[in-house]
Order: sequence, then structure tokens, then C-alpha cells
Amino acid sequence: MDNYYGPGRNHLFVPGPVNIPEQVLRAMNRNNEDYRSPAIPAMTKVLLEDVKKIFKTITGTPFLIPTTGTGAWESALTNTLSPGDRIVSFLIGQFSLLWIDQMQRLNFNVDVIESDWGTGANLEVLGSKLAADTGHTIKAICIVHNETATGVTNNLAAVRKLLDHYQHPALFLVDGVSSICALDFRMDEWGVDVALTGSQKALSLPTGMGIVCASPKALEASKTSKSVRVFFDWKDYLKFYNMGTFWPYTPSIQLLYGLREALDLLFEEGLDNVIERHTRLAKATRLAVEAWGLKNCTQKEEWFSDTVTAVVVPSYIDSSEIVRRGWKRYNLSLGLGLNKVAGKVFRIGHLGNLNELQLLGCLAGVEMILKDVGYPVKLGSGVAAACAFLQNSIPMIPSRI
Amino acid sequence: MDNYYGPGRNHLFVPGPVNIPEQVLRAMNRNNEDYRSPAIPAMTKVLLEDVKKIFKTITGTPFLIPTTGTGAWESALTNTLSPGDRIVSFLIGQFSLLWIDQMQRLNFNVDVIESDWGTGANLEVLGSKLAADTGHTIKAICIVHNETATGVTNNLAAVRKLLDHYQHPALFLVDGVSSICALDFRMDEWGVDVALTGSQKALSLPTGMGIVCASPKALEASKTSKSVRVFFDWKDYLKFYNMGTFWPYTPSIQLLYGLREALDLLFEEGLDNVIERHTRLAKATRLAVEAWGLKNCTQKEEWFSDTVTAVVVPSYIDSSEIVRRGWKRYNLSLGLGLNKVAGKVFRIGHLGNLNELQLLGCLAGVEMILKDVGYPVKLGSGVAAACAFLQNSIPMIPSRI
Amino acid sequence: MDNYYGPGRNHLFVPGPVNIPEQVLRAMNRNNEDYRSPAIPAMTKVLLEDVKKIFKTITGTPFLIPTTGTGAWESALTNTLSPGDRIVSFLIGQFSLLWIDQMQRLNFNVDVIESDWGTGANLEVLGSKLAADTGHTIKAICIVHNETATGVTNNLAAVRKLLDHYQHPALFLVDGVSSICALDFRMDEWGVDVALTGSQKALSLPTGMGIVCASPKALEASKTSKSVRVFFDWKDYLKFYNMGTFWPYTPSIQLLYGLREALDLLFEEGLDNVIERHTRLAKATRLAVEAWGLKNCTQKEEWFSDTVTAVVVPSYIDSSEIVRRGWKRYNLSLGLGLNKVAGKVFRIGHLGNLNELQLLGCLAGVEMILKDVGYPVKLGSGVAAACAFLQNSIPMIPSRI
Amino acid sequence: MDNYYGPGRNHLFVPGPVNIPEQVLRAMNRNNEDYRSPAIPAMTKVLLEDVKKIFKTITGTPFLIPTTGTGAWESALTNTLSPGDRIVSFLIGQFSLLWIDQMQRLNFNVDVIESDWGTGANLEVLGSKLAADTGHTIKAICIVHNETATGVTNNLAAVRKLLDHYQHPALFLVDGVSSICALDFRMDEWGVDVALTGSQKALSLPTGMGIVCASPKALEASKTSKSVRVFFDWKDYLKFYNMGTFWPYTPSIQLLYGLREALDLLFEEGLDNVIERHTRLAKATRLAVEAWGLKNCTQKEEWFSDTVTAVVVPSYIDSSEIVRRGWKRYNLSLGLGLNKVAGKVFRIGHLGNLNELQLLGCLAGVEMILKDVGYPVKLGSGVAAACAFLQNSIPMIPSRI
Repeated sequence: MDNYYGPGRNHLFVPGPVNIPEQVLRAMNRNNEDYRSPAIPAMTKVLLEDVKKIFKTITGTPFLIPTTGTGAWESALTNTLSPGDRIVSFLIGQFSLLWIDQMQRLNFNVDVIESDWGTGANLEVLGSKLAADTGHTIKAICIVHNETATGVTNNLAAVRKLLDHYQHPALFLVDGVSSICALDFRMDEWGVDVALTGSQKALSLPTGMGIVCASPKALEASKTSKSVRVFFDWKDYLKFYNMGTFWPYTPSIQLLYGLREALDLLFEEGLDNVIERHTRLAKATRLAVEAWGLKNCTQKEEWFSDTVTAVVVPSYIDSSEIVRRGWKRYNLSLGLGLNKVAGKVFRIGHLGNLNELQLLGCLAGVEMILKDVGYPVKLGSGVAAACAFLQNSIPMIPSRI
Repeated sequence: MDNYYGPGRNHLFVPGPVNIPEQVLRAMNRNNEDYRSPAIPAMTKVLLEDVKKIFKTITGTPFLIPTTGTGAWESALTNTLSPGDRIVSFLIGQFSLLWIDQMQRLNFNVDVIESDWGTGANLEVLGSKLAADTGHTIKAICIVHNETATGVTNNLAAVRKLLDHYQHPALFLVDGVSSICALDFRMDEWGVDVALTGSQKALSLPTGMGIVCASPKALEASKTSKSVRVFFDWKDYLKFYNMGTFWPYTPSIQLLYGLREALDLLFEEGLDNVIERHTRLAKATRLAVEAWGLKNCTQKEEWFSDTVTAVVVPSYIDSSEIVRRGWKRYNLSLGLGLNKVAGKVFRIGHLGNLNELQLLGCLAGVEMILKDVGYPVKLGSGVAAACAFLQNSIPMIPSRI
Repeated sequence: MDNYYGPGRNHLFVPGPVNIPEQVLRAMNRNNEDYRSPAIPAMTKVLLEDVKKIFKTITGTPFLIPTTGTGAWESALTNTLSPGDRIVSFLIGQFSLLWIDQMQRLNFNVDVIESDWGTGANLEVLGSKLAADTGHTIKAICIVHNETATGVTNNLAAVRKLLDHYQHPALFLVDGVSSICALDFRMDEWGVDVALTGSQKALSLPTGMGIVCASPKALEASKTSKSVRVFFDWKDYLKFYNMGTFWPYTPSIQLLYGLREALDLLFEEGLDNVIERHTRLAKATRLAVEAWGLKNCTQKEEWFSDTVTAVVVPSYIDSSEIVRRGWKRYNLSLGLGLNKVAGKVFRIGHLGNLNELQLLGCLAGVEMILKDVGYPVKLGSGVAAACAFLQNSIPMIPSRI
Repeated sequence: MDNYYGPGRNHLFVPGPVNIPEQVLRAMNRNNEDYRSPAIPAMTKVLLEDVKKIFKTITGTPFLIPTTGTGAWESALTNTLSPGDRIVSFLIGQFSLLWIDQMQRLNFNVDVIESDWGTGANLEVLGSKLAADTGHTIKAICIVHNETATGVTNNLAAVRKLLDHYQHPALFLVDGVSSICALDFRMDEWGVDVALTGSQKALSLPTGMGIVCASPKALEASKTSKSVRVFFDWKDYLKFYNMGTFWPYTPSIQLLYGLREALDLLFEEGLDNVIERHTRLAKATRLAVEAWGLKNCTQKEEWFSDTVTAVVVPSYIDSSEIVRRGWKRYNLSLGLGLNKVAGKVFRIGHLGNLNELQLLGCLAGVEMILKDVGYPVKLGSGVAAACAFLQNSIPMIPSRI
């Protein structure tokens, strides 16, 4: 018996951890195994090849690390940079803030480009810095692809363009935690040097696997990086890759089988279709928000996130009360506003293994909550706007035609 | 990999089998056990006591039979009646039809009171028959509490009133397949002699357990019934109840643990609250149907079913196409129209372990399907009507206050 | 928390229900589905074809009935025979006894050939009866292939030979509950008219599916059989087979997916290899019993069962105490002696998805129990005898070579 | 379908990851949840209290880190020590070697006391060093409680005695990966400053949770430690403990529920009974090894490990072949010999949620493998020796008396 039981399904719309599909739960419902038997290395070998597809890389080297996104960040930084190295990074919300905090505590020299929460990375300033940096003191550009706190997606292609324009050799490190497998992401095309995500986001697995992918240039950098590291050291992984046993320490057998199934589901749907589904769900959400007469925390359309929407509430409402009420009355889990936007926004996560009717149930729930807390919403208005769009754009399920 | 994979959850809104809560799936995720060990009888003993609560009976004797609702029907009839016995029964839809067909094939003499599909049992005719039957040739009244094909709930208290009024000793046998644990049902108060349900309905379990409850009068009748039976014979169960081993043949270990958990969830929520939740979900559904400008197949409010709503579509639409489209495009499973109402109605099951936001997702889906098939629905209208009601009536989740 | 918790795995060695492999548990760990969607009929169609392979039949028609072995018996009898029909059957143990009891209660005229418990069906007497029955009053020969209570396997080929020798047209009905998928069984070659098993036996599923297979002759007989039946009536199944929807009433979605996986595992191993594995495990068990200085309840080698061994204990020991002690001290579940052999034998089930080391753990446990209850066993003797044989005969696991 | 399918259960006897009990698999079979809802903090609060019991500490502060044992090591070191700090550690096998390697790579000054593999930590040398260290340059003693590679258990009480004798203030850091929840461990009584384990060992969970417990003195040290750390920094945890939200980053919901169940099972059995069961299983294993005429890698009885036994094979046998054969022929997973003892020993893990009959199945399997590879073992001899001891010492299962 759960202590907080409520009838029916929990409607999980935080931007991670997200809903795990039944297929993945099934795949993970298993006893431990000896990870030194031939079975696990054989499986791992194929997984490593397949996982490259979600990064859209041919030349990258992936690492499946028993950690979270925070650990994946640390792995990306400490393997490629040395203490004191100058990093340019962007502060646009809670997760970019936390990454920058990590960089500072790891003794990097972080050159922070700050923008208002709700706006994207200021690439103009980046351009100036790159232009000025003829001595190549900037060792890395670190950027959060999708800032989960504000629902802002940065333009990675534009960052690459700038780097190329200034022929700047800085490493390009990307936090793809709430983007990879959901938003368009092209590691090789965009010349990303390290990309990373966490299992509990668009991959729709439990938390516990940090997935990091390194370009050849990043691997090269790891050979000379002076950052102290052991658990997160790629060298140990590479040594075991070469030996064909793949694991420097014990992996989660269950997450490996879960990842296998999660990738199978992604490939069955088609990665591009998955991304398109995220676009569709996000558009529907934004139409609903508009119909409710509320504002998107994201200030320009070019930054709209297709995995999470941060909704600004009127000043007379505490957005935390919306989240609390969702849980207490509707079995609906929404994302809180964090730090600077605490109390001001609530967030709807629309990423992972999710479909339109699930989202519409959530939107209907949000409408009732808004009414509960005194906002004069017209009930049904958001759902109507979302449906008007969705009814024209949802494709048939290919396996069922 | 499923052959008919579509992303996200399947929205299961057929009126059975219904959604299984995760708690129950967990409870059933187990190896077989020796059913002759002390553990299974001890568990069964408590289950039999607890299962009486869902029938609201103190004096009844329950049987947990490894079968379906069809088998439970057969068990009810063959244990209490003898070939040739006169039964009065009501034909008002596909499931009452099938039960009557079974009665006839089992060689009972069925006196059928037929009504239009969409109406309830004609109790006036029943009254006349009882009045006329001074010789007590009628051995049983068999009635489907809730006709799943048309969404019609019959008034059992009124049947009992008639029987009492005419001091008629006929047995009172009730199919509660789509009512028990969801609609108000009072075995002892209404003098029901046999009541039955199936595990895959409001109990929210997998199919495979027919739950039959017999009054003392029914048990008495079983001693002299001449109907040929073995598998469904209560006598074997009673013998093993007396021995304390409880099982004349192998039960499903998984369904026993599943039933334990399902009952725990029901009792945690409170059976009356569960019934109220069904009333609320049904009302919301009917308000949506009304807002869409469509008709309920059920012709009078007194018969409205709180577990399933059969929606009549305009004659230019084939309701089967609605169901097909739900599955093919929206991962939504709706109920087909059956037999006389095939092509004319589709059904929304709203029973079992289900909450409001799940239902609202379904209703939003139905709106889009209606538009798909050419019905001029105003998108959002049904959801709006449902939300207007629900936002005023959903209680807080007690465990979360 | 289980009420009867003991650390480690339960060692399940009753002759059913048996251990469910993790693969099957996984396959069954799922929500309900609409059984009228295209997915379930498509799956059922393939299952029905594949299930014929476990009966070794090309011409048979299988039925997957939501019931137990007892229900499968009833289905076999009532579909092919009419009340008063003369059946020849063999009483050699508890399960043949129960089937005969069912036949009698179903009003057949049972001509019982009784033998000592521990011996096989007396085919000489059958021969005489067939010889004498020039008028073909015998409508069916009903035989339990493997009597689970005594560990006796009957010779079905010999029964067929007799029927052919006397050119007798009697139907040949076989209870294969503890044989099919474990012992050599050849429906077509042996001219079996109805064969049946239960899901919880060698198929290694939960209880709840009775699997019945009918020859064309049996199907023909079902058209004229006058036995009253509805739930078990093949006619309803055949009608839905023809419609392509396959199910006259709701099947267990979970058991269908479980059956799919169970068959996949059987076919992956190879049905003949599965049978050979059962032969090997049984031989090892018998060698252990011999080493302990105990007797097999089965009196001649020709009847030795490869799915269950009933071990006779000295008269100064109560075999029930052995079973109780197994459960209370060793987390080992053994089979009780039933009816005539209650207290005199205990049974080791060695059927289903089981391997040699599991069995050896059980045998070691039995040795300790024997010592516990005062039998002067030489500890290790049975395991040694079993290992001596197994070490020479276990094949490599093909997928791992 | 698994690619390396073999019938029956895999017999998992590597010293981690170990068998997960079905109860824990059930508890973990669940969707993700919002970890910021009131439910997860409430659960975590109790878990943190309960987890202290497995360390036998009142004053300690536990951390449940999403990592493996290797990460837990890093957490223990970097939170309490500063680069250049002198550590005394013991090299007695592969896992102590790896920890020392980590210490060196983390830039600590490691004073290694090396002993033969198969012997315990040389405490005499430790004594001399402590005696000589009047200036207290030694900042920490790091010791592996149970060296998993050789099956050697070190005497922690003796280490504490030495520290006390010399009134030495060095921190006392203990790797309890293959000891805690299985061997006698007393954090407070022995004055351990940091103790740690991994979820996949005696707790019998999947891999993925590093459990670290810090004494007040260790916490104090963490305030001044200059080691660079973010992911493993206790400070972040302590901050969130104070806020009552408990998690600085996303935990694995499934592992939290799994830990809850694992602790419940441990407490139900009783931690002291669990330890006694490990003693019993280990003794039985050693008796078998002796009966086979083989040597324990552990050179003195005082160091015998009760969680893993490393068995030395004759020089003409390659122990890796034993492990390979176990997997290929018997579905038995044994531990390889690592590094210095590669090819020379194989290991039997006997820790976690395991019972006697499981172990006896393993021992029987080892006997057959030994014969397979040409060692003249007397089949049954090891099992006989083990049974002779076990039959006298296994207690009744309390819940079943």
C-alpha cells in the first residue's frame, strides 16, 4: 500500500523523471546477472553503437555512466579541461546556474554570459568574446541546449557557426539532458565535442544512467586534462572497451536492458518522428497557454522549448500552490518554478514516451487548477485550442494502419 | 517489441477489461506457489471474508472461480436451478441476451421480458407475472444489474420490492459484472440470492476470476438442484472450505495476490467513495455527450449507467469507424456497438481504477475522432462541460491533504 | 511484506503449479488491453497455430479456455459425449479418480478399470473389453497420460494399437495435464481425439488457461453430443474463430502474452530437447531415491514418470511431516501424498522450466529432511548418484557455446 | 527472447551483483514519480533513519548516492581528506588495490602496507606506523573490510584498538561493500568514520546506489577538506537534508522503493539472523571445499570471509575454465580469479538474499564442473559435508513455525 494513494494513474508532467513505458518496465523486471559473463559485454557493444544514433554521431565515443545528469556534467568537464581553464558559459536559468556553479567549484575559470531568465544564450556576447580571444584563452564553450527551468532552447548551430567563423578551437560542450531524444540534436553536424543526457529524461528510463558522448577532439583533450578524476574518468572506460569487457565497475543490469528496450522503441517510432511528436505536443501546450490568457516564460518564439513549457502566472497567484493542488486533488504532477522564478511559473513537462491524449488530460487538469486558485480561466479553452491543432496534425500510428 | 506499438500509454476505455493499477501489477508479479502450503489457505480465508464486503453481505458465501463472467453465470444458474425450471429474465441488450441464451441452452424454461435496447427491465410486466404466479412456478428472476451494451442500470431494489409485495419465493439472481465495486449494490438489503462479477471489471484485475456470492437460500437450493455440473459445482468448494484447504483445484496464485491488493485499494479509498467516484466520472461523461449534441443510448435518466455510456451517433456515421480511428490514431480504446446497436453506438467505459484526468484525456480524444469522421463537434465543448462539473465536485485525495 | 517470509528463493517442487521463468513473468507484467482490437485476434491466430506444435498435431483444433485442468476435462467430455454414453477409464491414482468422478457426475456410464496405485493402466483388461464390444457400445477411452499422484506414465501408443487392432471407433481422450510439453506426446501419430493440459504445468505459466485440442473426429462428435454445456462449448469458440475475432468471452490478456513467451522459450530450446531434459532430471531423481534406499511408488520401470516421482517412505514415517518440514525449515515445497497414499509418499515434481542445479538443491534438501524425520539416510548419497549421471549427460547450453 | 537463453534459473554465485528477491523486484516494478512531491522526501527521511541500522550507528549521517562502490569510495575520500594527505592503506587483493589506485590518482599520499594475497591486513605494521607517527601525519586509515577478490575479512575492531592505543586521531575509513548487511559490522562501537557499501551486494538490490555513512568527526573533516568535488560532495546533500527536500539531484525512484523493501526484509529476518545465515552458508561452503580436497585462498581461519570463498585450483587447471564451464553448461555464474590470482582461483559468492538449498545447488554444480575439467573430485562429497553441518544448524523459518 502506498502512503499517498490516490485512485487511477498519476499524471506525471514534471520535466523529468518522466513516464516509463510499460515495455521498458517489463524489460527491467529482472534479476541481477554476472556482468562479466559473455552476455553483458555482447549487449553493451551493440548498445554503445546504437546509443550513438541518438546523438547523431558517427565519430563519437559514448560512455554509459552509473550516475545522474550532475555526474555527467562533471564527467564532461573534468575529462576535457584542466583547473584554471577559461570556460565561456551562459546563465539563463536554474540548470545553467547549477552547471556554472559546478564549473566554479571544479576550479575552472568561468566567463559567465548572463541573460534574463526566459531568454536564450546571448550569442552576440559570445561572438565578441570569441572575436577578442585571438590568443585562444577560451578552452571551452559550455551551453545547456534546453534550459529546463524556463523552457528555453538554445541555438546550437549558431554557436558552431560562431566558432567556425572565428576559427576558434574551443571545445563545444553541451548539456542535452532535456533535449536529446526529444529535440533536434546533431552532434557531428554541429561539431559538438561533448554531449550528455540522463536516462530519466526523453529516454524514459529510471534515473541512474548518465550518457556522455565525446568527439575525437574531446577524447584527445582527455589525454592531457589535468583535472583530478577517477570515477568519472573516461580512461578507465576506454581501457575496458579495448579489453572487450566494457565495464570498469558494476553497471546496472536492469538499466542496460531498459536502455535496450528504450532504444528499440525510439527506433521503431523513428527518431525523427519522435522529435516531431515532441514539436506537436509542445505546440499544443503553447496554444493552450495562450488560450488561457497566460504567458510563456520564454520570451521569444525562437527559444520555445519543445520539451517543457514554463507558464507565468499572474502576480496574485503563487505558482507553487498550483503544483501542490495538482498533486493533492488531481493526481497531477507539475513542475515547480525554481529559484528566480519560484512562485512565478509552473512547468508542464511534455517529453519522453507520451502521447496527445495524455497531454490533453493534463491540460484539462491545469484548467481546473487555475480555476481552483482563482484565475478566471474559461474551462475547456486550452483543450479546445490544443485539439484544434492536434486534430489536424496527429499522424496515424504506422503499426496500426 | 509489441507488433502494434504506438508511443505513450494506451487509453483503455472499453467497459472491461479495464486499467490495472500499478499496485496490482506489482502484487501479481510473482512466481507460482504451492497452493497446499499453509500460506494460501490462510490468505484465502481472509480474502473470502473481505470479498463479502464488496457485495455488502454478511450472510453470503463467496466463491472465487477460475473462470470468466460467462462461467460465473453458469455457476449461478446450475447450482440453484434444475432443468425445466421457469426463469423470468429481461432482454434489454447484448449481455442480457447472452445470459438468456445460456439459460436456454442449459434447458431452463426462460420467460423473457423484452424491452427496447436503451431501456431498463420492464418491471411492470414482472409485476404482472408475479401477481399471476400464485402457484410459484417462477423459480428465479435473473437480471443484469448493469447492461454493458447499452449503459442501462436496472433498479434492483424495485425488483426486491415486487418479490416482497407478492410474497414470491423466487430466487433473485443478479449479474453484477459491470456494477459490483462501482455502482451501489446491496446483496443483503435487496435480498439478492446470487450475485456475481468478473475480476477484469470494476475490481481492475486481469480476466480470470469469476466471483460469485450465494445467499443462504441459494446455498439451500444448491443442495437439491438437478442441473448437471462439476467444475462449477459449489459443493466441491464448500467441502474444501470445511477442510480448511479451500481449493478443489488449482487457483491462480497471481490473481489471489492481485485480489488482495485490489481489495486493499478499494478499502483504502472506501467503497462508498469508489462508488461516488464512478458517479462523478459518469456524470462528467454524460455532460460531455450532451455538449457534443449527441444522444445517450439510455433513454431515461433513471437508467443511466455510472460505469459505461453508450453514445448514439448520427445515422450518417458508422460508430465502428469511431472505435477503429481511436485505436489507429489516438491510442484510445473505445467500446464497439454490439448486435442491434452495432454501427449505431460507441461506448465509453468509465469504471475501475480510473481518475478524472484520465477520463478527460479520453473525452478530448473522442472529440477529435468525432471531427475526424465528419461530425460537426465544437472541439473542447465536451471537456469544458465535464470540467465545469468536475472542478466543483472532485474531492481532495485524503492521503495527500 | 509476505506473511510467511523466509530468506532466499522458494524451492518449488510440487508437480504444479511450477516455476515461472522470469521471461514469462516479464511478458505478463502488463496492463489489460481491449481484446476486440486487431492486436489480440492477430496474436491469437498465431498462438493457435503454434500451440498445435506442443500436441504434435497438424489436424487438431486447439481451444484456450479460461479455466483449469478440471474445466478442461469437462470440456473434453461434454463436447464429445452424450449422457449415458459408455466410457472406459482407468483408476490408478487421485487424478484419474477425480476425472472418473467427474464423468459419473456428468452422467456418463463409466466402465472403470481399476489397478493398484503405483501401477499403470491395465491394458489387458482394456483389450478384453474392446474385443468383447463388437457392438461398439464403448464411446470413449479416457486415460490420464501421467498420473500425477503416483508418478505413473501410461503407454498411449499401446492404447491406440489396441483400438486399431480391434478396429474400434471409440474416441480416445487423454488428460495430458502433467505430460504435455514434458513427456513425449504425439496427438496425430497416436490418434488421440482430445488432448488437454493446464497452463501451470509444463508450460510454466500461472494457473488459468485450460488448453484443449480436438481431432477432426472429436469436432465431428461435438456436433451431435447431447451433453448440456455453454461455457465449455467448443461451438462458441468455432463461431468466433470463423469470424476472426476468436474470443466468445474475455480472455486473460496477460496469459496470452505469457503463453506467447512460454512457447517461444520451448521452441528456442527445442521441444525434443525439453523432453530430453525432463527425462534427464527424472532419471537423476530416481537415482537419488535409490541411493537413499527408498522406493519409487511406481512399481515398474515402464511406468516411471519423467515429470513427477512419488517416493515411498518407511511405515514409521509420516510423509506429510516431510512436506511440512520442507516448507518450515528449508523453504522447499514438495508434493503431499494424496488419498490412498496420503502419509505414505511424498512427491518431487520435476517438470517445467527447471534445470539440473535447481533439482540438486531440492535433492540435497530432501536428504536433510529425511535425516530430520529419523530416516537413516547417508547425507550426500542421493546428490552423488544424481551428479554421477548428470555430469555425463547434461548438454552444453546451445546459445552459449 | 534472451540471446543466451538456457532453461531454468540462472544460479548467480558471483560475489555481486547478487540475487534480487522477488519482493524487491516487485517493489521496483513502477513508473517514475516526481521526486519533489511530499511523498519522496517523507519516504527518504525514514529510509535515512533505517539505513543507519545496517551500519549499527546512532550518530552517523548516511548518504544515498546514485553511483557504484567506486563512486562511494571517492565520496568517502574527497569529503574527508585534502590532496597530499597521508593515508595508510592495505594492499591485499584486487579491490584494495583499486581503492589505493584511486587514492593515488586523487593525489593523496598513500602509505601502502602490502601483504600476500590471501592474507589479511598486516596490523603489526600498522601498529609500528602509528607508534612512529607522533606528529600525526597520518590523516586516515583506509581498509577494505572484506576483500572480495580473495575472501579475506579484516579485523576492524583490532584496527580501532590500535588507533585508541596510540591515541591516534586518524580518520578510520572502511570499504564495507561486501560486508555490510552480511558480516558483523559496528560503526559506532568500532569508531568507524566513514563506512560505505553498494546496493548490489548484501542488500540484494540492483547496482546504482552507493550508501555512505559518515561519523560526526568525518562530517567535521568535510568542512575543511580541500579535495575538489561536486557530484560527490556531502555538503549539497546536507543542504537539502536541512531544507527537508533531501535530494540535490534526481534519485532513482525505483531504487528508493527497492531499498525500502530490502530493509523491510532484513528487519523482518533480523539483522543478527541475517549475519548468522551468512556465517552458516560460508561455513558450509568451506566444508565442501575441504571435502573436495581443495584449498581456500584465505590462509588463516581468522580471515575467512563469510560472504565469498576463493577456491584455489591445482596448477594444472585454469580456474577461468571452471567459470566458463559453469555458465556454458550449468547456468551457474561463479566469480573469476582477478589479477594476481587470475586462473588460480575461482570464487563462490554466498551473500545477500540466499538460502541453503540455493547454495547446495551451486556446490553440486561446482563438483560436476571440477570433474569436467579433470579434477578427481568425489561427486557428492562437498554437498555431503555441507549438509552434515547445515542439517544441524539451519533454524526453522520463524514465520512458518
